[in-house]
Amino acid sequence: MELAGLFYPPYYAVIFSNIRTEGDAGYAAMAEEMEKLGSEQPGFLGLDSARSGVGITVSYWRTLEDLHAWKAVARHQVAQRLGKEVWYESYVTRVAKVEYEYAKPTAS
Amino acid sequence: MELAGLFYPPYYAVIFSNIRTEGDAGYAAMAEEMEKLGSEQPGFLGLDSARSGVGITVSYWRTLEDLHAWKAVARHQVAQRLGKEVWYESYVTRVAKVEYEYAKPTAS
Repeated sequence: MELAGLFYPPYYAVIFSNIRTEGDAGYAAMAEEMEKLGSEQPGFLGLDSARSGVGITVSYWRTLEDLHAWKAVARHQVAQRLGKEVWYESYVTRVAKVEYEYAKPTAS
Repeated sequence: MELAGLFYPPYYAVIFSNIRTEGDAGYAAMAEEMEKLGSEQPGFLGLDSARSGVGITVSYWRTLEDLHAWKAVARHQVAQRLGKEVWYESYVTRVAKVEYEYAKPTAS
């Protein structure tokens, strides 16, 4: 259990809020695969994820171009299509530019 | 179980990722109070929240001034101080400007 750290703005956050459909239907394996593949992309900074009823995953990216490149990766496009058609009852994706950040413990 | 809707950018997201300390120590009651009080503030748009190990709460605000005003509300300042001193082992707060958003089902 660990939080994504400080990444020194400006950078981008993709806030993905969602409600899952019933059953797994391949979801868990793909989620794991996408977390690994995503973390290997250029410009990937980190990720926070939690689910309790609603799921929220926030990924952090150095630039808008980096997150667009990840969105276009072929295997990720398969995952996005299955997400829309099978795994998610509903979702909202927001792309936001981080302007400032602070933390406890205070960053050195 | 419901997701915050679409709010038509630009607007602001406050991404609060955290790890709780052990025990309640008044946390649950204050969290409920802050969710109610926050939702009554000018410029408040909505909120998504989930916890599974890591907690993530994302609140949405019309302007930076609106979220700064909420941060300065006296009762919220008490909650922030107790959060830092008692309830959170660690946290990161990020303030980000939402540039675009999309959803399933597609907004009409």
